[in-house]
Amino acid sequence: MAGTLTHLDDDGRARMIDVGGKPETRREAVARGRMVTTAEVVRLLVADGLPKADALATVRVAGIAGAKRTSDLIPLCHPLPIDSVTVDLRPEGDSVVVEARVSTTGRTGVEMEALTAVAVAGLTLHDMIKAVDPGATMTDVQLVEKTGGKRGHWTRDA
Amino acid sequence: MAGTLTHLDDDGRARMIDVGGKPETRREAVARGRMVTTAEVVRLLVADGLPKADALATVRVAGIAGAKRTSDLIPLCHPLPIDSVTVDLRPEGDSVVVEARVSTTGRTGVEMEALTAVAVAGLTLHDMIKAVDPGATMTDVQLVEKTGGKRGHWTRDA
Amino acid sequence: MAGTLTHLDDDGRARMIDVGGKPETRREAVARGRMVTTAEVVRLLVADGLPKADALATVRVAGIAGAKRTSDLIPLCHPLPIDSVTVDLRPEGDSVVVEARVSTTGRTGVEMEALTAVAVAGLTLHDMIKAVDPGATMTDVQLVEKTGGKRGHWTRDA
Amino acid sequence: MAGTLTHLDDDGRARMIDVGGKPETRREAVARGRMVTTAEVVRLLVADGLPKADALATVRVAGIAGAKRTSDLIPLCHPLPIDSVTVDLRPEGDSVVVEARVSTTGRTGVEMEALTAVAVAGLTLHDMIKAVDPGATMTDVQLVEKTGGKRGHWTRDA
Amino acid sequence: MAGTLTHLDDDGRARMIDVGGKPETRREAVARGRMVTTAEVVRLLVADGLPKADALATVRVAGIAGAKRTSDLIPLCHPLPIDSVTVDLRPEGDSVVVEARVSTTGRTGVEMEALTAVAVAGLTLHDMIKAVDPGATMTDVQLVEKTGGKRGHWTRDA
Amino acid sequence: MAGTLTHLDDDGRARMIDVGGKPETRREAVARGRMVTTAEVVRLLVADGLPKADALATVRVAGIAGAKRTSDLIPLCHPLPIDSVTVDLRPEGDSVVVEARVSTTGRTGVEMEALTAVAVAGLTLHDMIKAVDPGATMTDVQLVEKTGGKRGHWTRDA
Repeated sequence: MAGTLTHLDDDGRARMIDVGGKPETRREAVARGRMVTTAEVVRLLVADGLPKADALATVRVAGIAGAKRTSDLIPLCHPLPIDSVTVDLRPEGDSVVVEARVSTTGRTGVEMEALTAVAVAGLTLHDMIKAVDPGATMTDVQLVEKTGGKRGHWTRDA
Repeated sequence: MAGTLTHLDDDGRARMIDVGGKPETRREAVARGRMVTTAEVVRLLVADGLPKADALATVRVAGIAGAKRTSDLIPLCHPLPIDSVTVDLRPEGDSVVVEARVSTTGRTGVEMEALTAVAVAGLTLHDMIKAVDPGATMTDVQLVEKTGGKRGHWTRDA
Repeated sequence: MAGTLTHLDDDGRARMIDVGGKPETRREAVARGRMVTTAEVVRLLVADGLPKADALATVRVAGIAGAKRTSDLIPLCHPLPIDSVTVDLRPEGDSVVVEARVSTTGRTGVEMEALTAVAVAGLTLHDMIKAVDPGATMTDVQLVEKTGGKRGHWTRDA
Repeated sequence: MAGTLTHLDDDGRARMIDVGGKPETRREAVARGRMVTTAEVVRLLVADGLPKADALATVRVAGIAGAKRTSDLIPLCHPLPIDSVTVDLRPEGDSVVVEARVSTTGRTGVEMEALTAVAVAGLTLHDMIKAVDPGATMTDVQLVEKTGGKRGHWTRDA
Repeated sequence: MAGTLTHLDDDGRARMIDVGGKPETRREAVARGRMVTTAEVVRLLVADGLPKADALATVRVAGIAGAKRTSDLIPLCHPLPIDSVTVDLRPEGDSVVVEARVSTTGRTGVEMEALTAVAVAGLTLHDMIKAVDPGATMTDVQLVEKTGGKRGHWTRDA
Repeated sequence: MAGTLTHLDDDGRARMIDVGGKPETRREAVARGRMVTTAEVVRLLVADGLPKADALATVRVAGIAGAKRTSDLIPLCHPLPIDSVTVDLRPEGDSVVVEARVSTTGRTGVEMEALTAVAVAGLTLHDMIKAVDPGATMTDVQLVEKTGGKRGHWTRDA
C-alpha cells in the first residue's frame, strides 16, 4: 500500500497525471457489482416464460454507453480509445449480478471504464425497478481483475 | 410490491413514460453509499494534520456534476430542472460514506439524480484511490428517503 | 409558405429565437422514417423463431436517448423538458419503419425531438446492419403529425 | 450477405465488439442524403442575390460537430480519433444534397461518423425550414463509398 | 460587497444552492468580451470584398451552442430552460467584439449562460485564427447588464 | 502572418482540416488568463486564515474537465487523446491568475485544450464570485507557449 494519492500534486492540488511517457499496450479490466432486490422483481426483469422484454437489454446498452462516458464523468480520468465493452447480467435469487469487461490499446488502464459500466448499468437497473422496489440496493461494486500495464496482472483474492 | 415494470409497455418495449399529466411539485430525494477501503487510505483522503488537499472537493464536485448528467446516462430517465444538489462525504474508520440530497420542482422525482450523484462520487473516489487500494469496494448504494409526488414520503426502515 | 427563415435575424445571422412570450402548453409530435435493407437482414433483426435478441431493443433505447440530446445536436434548438418518448419499430418486408412520438409541456414544439429520435434510431440500425448490408438506406424521415402550440394540429396529407 | 449481426454475441446480447487486434490504418467514408423541400425554400436557404446568410454554414458546422458525437449517440459504436470531416451542401431544384466525408487513422471504419454527419446536418436543415415547410423530408441517407480496413474499397453501384 | 461565497456551505464545502423557493420569472443577461488580434486577421475573418465565408457564422453558432452547455461545464451552475440566445460579432480595428444576450423564464439568472456564450465564441475565434496569429488574446470578458430576479436591474457603470 | 484561415476551404466553407498525414508526436501547450475582481473577493476565495474551502479546488477540477470537452465545444477542433492537464491558480492582489498546461501524443497541438481549460476555469471562478462581484472581468486569455509539431517551439515575447 502506497503513501500518496497520485491524482494530487505535492501541494495537494488535483491534476490529471501525465501518461505521455507510458507505452500504448493492450489492457483489460473486469469489474462487478450486485443489485439486491427481491426474487419477484428479478422474475419481472427476466420475464420468465414470456417473450423476453427490453429490460435487461436496456441495462446492457446503458452500461456500454456509460463506459464511453467515463472520462466525461470522472474529472481526473484520461480519455481512452476503447477497444471493446461487454456487460453481462446474471440473475441470482433476489439479485442481479452485473459484470463488465473493457479493453483498450492505450497508455493507461480501463479499470474506471469497467467500474463505470457497472455503475451506470446498476443505475439503469435501479431506475427500472424503483417503482416496484424503492429499497433496492447496489452493492459490492469492485474491480475483479486487470491485465496489461506496468503492474501487470492483478486479481481479487476472493 | 407491484406486478409490472412501468418502463416497459404491454409488449415489453422500453419507453420513456408520460409524466405530462403530473403536477409540478417540490420533490426531494436522499441517497447513500459507502466506499470501503482501508483506514490508511481514508487518512490520505482527509489529509489528517495537513492543509486540506483537493481529494474530497474533487469527489463532491464530480457527484454534483454527475447529478446533472442523470438523464443523459440513464436511457429512460426524464430530464428535470434541478433546484439543488449537495454531496456529503463522511469518513468512518476504513470507509467513506457518500450521501447526496437533490431537490427539484418538477413532474417526477429525483431519486435517480440522488443515486447518480452517489455513484459518480463513488467512481471518482475509486479513481482517486485505485492506485493505492485496487480492491476498494463501493457498497450499499441505495435510496434513503424521498418526499413529494403522488406517493408522498418514503423512508428506508433501517 | 412563409417568406423568411425564422432562425436568422434581419441581417441573416443565426440566432436562437425568443420563445419567452409563448405559454407552456402540452405539445406532441410524431415523426417517421424507413430503413430499407433486405428481407434477410430484417429477419436477422427480428430474430424470427429464436429467443428475441437485443437488436431492436438497442435501437429503441438509442432513439429515446437521442431525443434527449436534440438541443445538444441542433445548434438553434431550444432545450425542452420532455414528458415522454416512444420509439416503435415495425418490420415490413425488406424495411423497418421507425416511428417516434414525443410530448412536452413547454414553450415550443417537439418536432425536432421526434425527428432526432427517428434519425438516431436509424443510425443505430445502420450501425447494427452495416457489416451485412453496407448499402442500407434510411429514407422518408419526416414529420407525421403535431399538436399543441399556436398553429394547432398539423398532419401530413398522405 | 452474411448470416449474423456482429454487434450481438452468440446469445443475442448487445456488445461493443473487440477491435483491439485490428491495425491502425487510414480509413475514409463518404455518406450522402437528400432533404426534399420546395424550390422556394431552397432559395431562402441559399439566399439568392443577397449577402449570404448563416443558414448553410450552421448546417455544415452542426454536421461536423455531429460526426464527433457519433460514439456518444450510437451505443455500440467505438470512439475514434477523427482526422477530418467535411460536409458539402448542394442545392438541386427542390432539394439540398448533403454529403459528408470523414477520415481517421484508427482500428475501425468511419462509416457511422459520415452517416451521423449527414443525419445531424439533415436535422439542422429540418429545424431551419420546418416553420416554412413542415412537410420537408430527409431521404436516401446512405453510405456512398469507403476505403481502408480489411475489406478494402467499397462503393455503391448506382 | 457581501462577505461569503454562496456556492460554499458553512464548512466551505461546494454545493449547488437551492433555488426551489424562488419564483420563475423572466430574466436576461448580456455579456461581452473582445478578441484582440491584428487588423489583417480581422479582414480575413470578415472576408472584406468577397462572398462572405463561414468564419463568423461558425463562431456565432458555437457561442449559441455553448450557452446551452453552461450547466454541463460549470459544476455548481443550475440547468435552466433557455428562451433565447443571440451572439453578435463586431469587428473594430484589430479586434472583434463578442456580445451575447441570453434570456430565460426560470428560477435563477442567465449571467453564466451569457458569459459562457462569449467564452465559447471566443475560443472558436481563437481556434480559427491561431495558425495566423498565435498571440491573439481574449480580453475583458464580463457581464454588461442583467434584468429580472430579486436584485432587479444591474448594469456596468462604464 | 499567413494569408488564409486554414479552417475554411477555397470557397470559404468551414471544415475540419485533415491531420491524417501528420505524425503522432508529443505536444504541449500553456495558456493563461486573469480574473480581475477585488482584493476582498480574492481573500474569500483563498479563505485566508481558515481551513481551506472548496472554492479553488472546484475551479481547478472544472478547468481540467473543460479541457476534455474542447472538441465538443469548438466545432472545427479535432478530438485528441490528452496525456495530462494541470490548472494552477495564483492569487495576485485583486486578481487570480489561471494557468493551464496540457500535453498530448497526437497529430495536432493542444493549444485549444489549454485555452479551454483556462476559459472554463475562468467561467467557474466567475460563477463562484458573481454574487459578491458582478463586475468581475476575465482578461488576457492567451497562449503562452507551445512545443512539438511541425512549427516547433513558440513562446510569447512578453
